[in-house]
Amino acid sequence: MNPKKDRPGPRDCKTELIAIKDTMELLSGKWKIQIVGALMLTGRIRFMDLLRETPGIAAKMLSKELQELEQNGLVARSVMHTKPITVEYELTEHGQTLKRLIEEIRNWGMEHRKFIKASIINDFS
Amino acid sequence: MNPKKDRPGPRDCKTELIAIKDTMELLSGKWKIQIVGALMLTGRIRFMDLLRETPGIAAKMLSKELQELEQNGLVARSVMHTKPITVEYELTEHGQTLKRLIEEIRNWGMEHRKFIKASIINDFS
Repeated sequence: MNPKKDRPGPRDCKTELIAIKDTMELLSGKWKIQIVGALMLTGRIRFMDLLRETPGIAAKMLSKELQELEQNGLVARSVMHTKPITVEYELTEHGQTLKRLIEEIRNWGMEHRKFIKASIINDFS
Repeated sequence: MNPKKDRPGPRDCKTELIAIKDTMELLSGKWKIQIVGALMLTGRIRFMDLLRETPGIAAKMLSKELQELEQNGLVARSVMHTKPITVEYELTEHGQTLKRLIEEIRNWGMEHRKFIKASIINDFS
């Protein structure tokens, strides 16, 4: 029996660190989570409506962010041959898997804020 | 009855976005998750040993990162009055709550990598 067998080796650790880095890079920045969150709430939506659902973002930035999300297989873009052309966006099935993760990130942040507030109160009492 | 009552209002959304931003800021950067991960594996540990457990980090950077984690109540620092003085670090109870979140971030990243690999294979076949 080799007790070391059950512990992650250097290679496993590297794979895990890369996985963490990938996720953090994909979700960091000011807009990605907001856009994904908006798409979760609205479902399939036209570009101009998504622009309204993401307050403060510029059209150019939204376009750039959507392109990155599309390249990562998280968002699907459909071009409708109407006049004028309509472009719609929605989360892919893979994009939907972000829901639980974003909820965990939000929940932890809310607990953390409570913790910090309680610590400040304790420090001053 | 007000059906709007069950939907998050602008204020709730803002609180949730801030919570997400807090978490992402706290965990982003090259080292924070690696340091927290090392502390999870090792438990209470001396500075020099933690330096070895976080490959590639400079002592000055480790010191800075630990200070930030301490300010956020995630890491506790103990000074032992030995000769020479020994300083030890460990996760606080609050710091331990990051475990599940980091696991979720890692798991999502690993699934995402699988998904991207499968997409590339499909594109070329």
